[in-house]
Amino acid sequence: MTHDHSDSIQRLKIVEGHIRGIQRMLEKDQYCIDIIRQIQAVGAALNKISTSLLDQHLNTCLLSAIQSDDLVEQKRVLNEITEVFETSQKI
Amino acid sequence: MTHDHSDSIQRLKIVEGHIRGIQRMLEKDQYCIDIIRQIQAVGAALNKISTSLLDQHLNTCLLSAIQSDDLVEQKRVLNEITEVFETSQKI
Amino acid sequence: MTHDHSDSIQRLKIVEGHIRGIQRMLEKDQYCIDIIRQIQAVGAALNKISTSLLDQHLNTCLLSAIQSDDLVEQKRVLNEITEVFETSQKI
Amino acid sequence: MTHDHSDSIQRLKIVEGHIRGIQRMLEKDQYCIDIIRQIQAVGAALNKISTSLLDQHLNTCLLSAIQSDDLVEQKRVLNEITEVFETSQKI
Repeated sequence: MTHDHSDSIQRLKIVEGHIRGIQRMLEKDQYCIDIIRQIQAVGAALNKISTSLLDQHLNTCLLSAIQSDDLVEQKRVLNEITEVFETSQKI
Repeated sequence: MTHDHSDSIQRLKIVEGHIRGIQRMLEKDQYCIDIIRQIQAVGAALNKISTSLLDQHLNTCLLSAIQSDDLVEQKRVLNEITEVFETSQKI
Repeated sequence: MTHDHSDSIQRLKIVEGHIRGIQRMLEKDQYCIDIIRQIQAVGAALNKISTSLLDQHLNTCLLSAIQSDDLVEQKRVLNEITEVFETSQKI
Repeated sequence: MTHDHSDSIQRLKIVEGHIRGIQRMLEKDQYCIDIIRQIQAVGAALNKISTSLLDQHLNTCLLSAIQSDDLVEQKRVLNEITEVFETSQKI
């Protein structure tokens, strides 16, 4: 199961640049609230990437796992979805 | 596809009592931060109920939808998972 | 320090009715995803109430605590803000 | 008002390395769920940095703004806290 992750990689490169920009804001001792806002913007960008990856995963790996006859594998992929959903509520 | 929701109903009854308790805290003008903490506790309890319902949904409705031959239905149930995941990050 | 919490109490009464509605959805075994969406809507409503209470708290209790000369009290109220902020990220 | 942000800068450098690691996971087309978990770990690390910055802000900028006689400035710094609290619930 191969995926085209070029869009997510591109978005992570932007996040990486954003993180470096926040480091510079901290080095220059810019206003804390502005820095927190930038960190929150990075968090929102990461959430979008996670959502996009989950969507891709559901339509490829999960779909083929469930359409296989491997009940253990089915249970495993379904549990993973529940687990990342649970974690997403805590971040 | 029927489910046993008795556990979730029981937990929602507890949440309902919790909400009424918070109303009384507000009526007595108790300390704001203590009230906010109680609201956050309710939020955490609701997240657990959502996670439990999602787990049940994945192992019943989603599983049977994907094992059917209805590609439109498959796509629909998968999109719903992505959507509730996306929303869970925003609450 | 007294507050007018009538708006928050009103909004919590609506949340309470919403929670009872979700119990009925569960009793009728309605579609899991629709139920999860309703729980997420309650979570969003609770977040708004928390934000409103925090705003009120900052402009009353926190303000007067910081304008007092009690350094221990100042530290306590500031720590509480950090703590509810931290918890809000985890719900 | 100057702050020692060396700890937050150090933690952001770790986050930056983490982000680059996730890019490599995507380039190698590693398992989607493992990648989502890594993104969620970055989100949790960013939340800790935000909390630490807020704590510092409250004990420096906010404290001095409120202890000044500038009512407009007081209102502004308090509104900012409400705003970042509100945003933190949505990420």
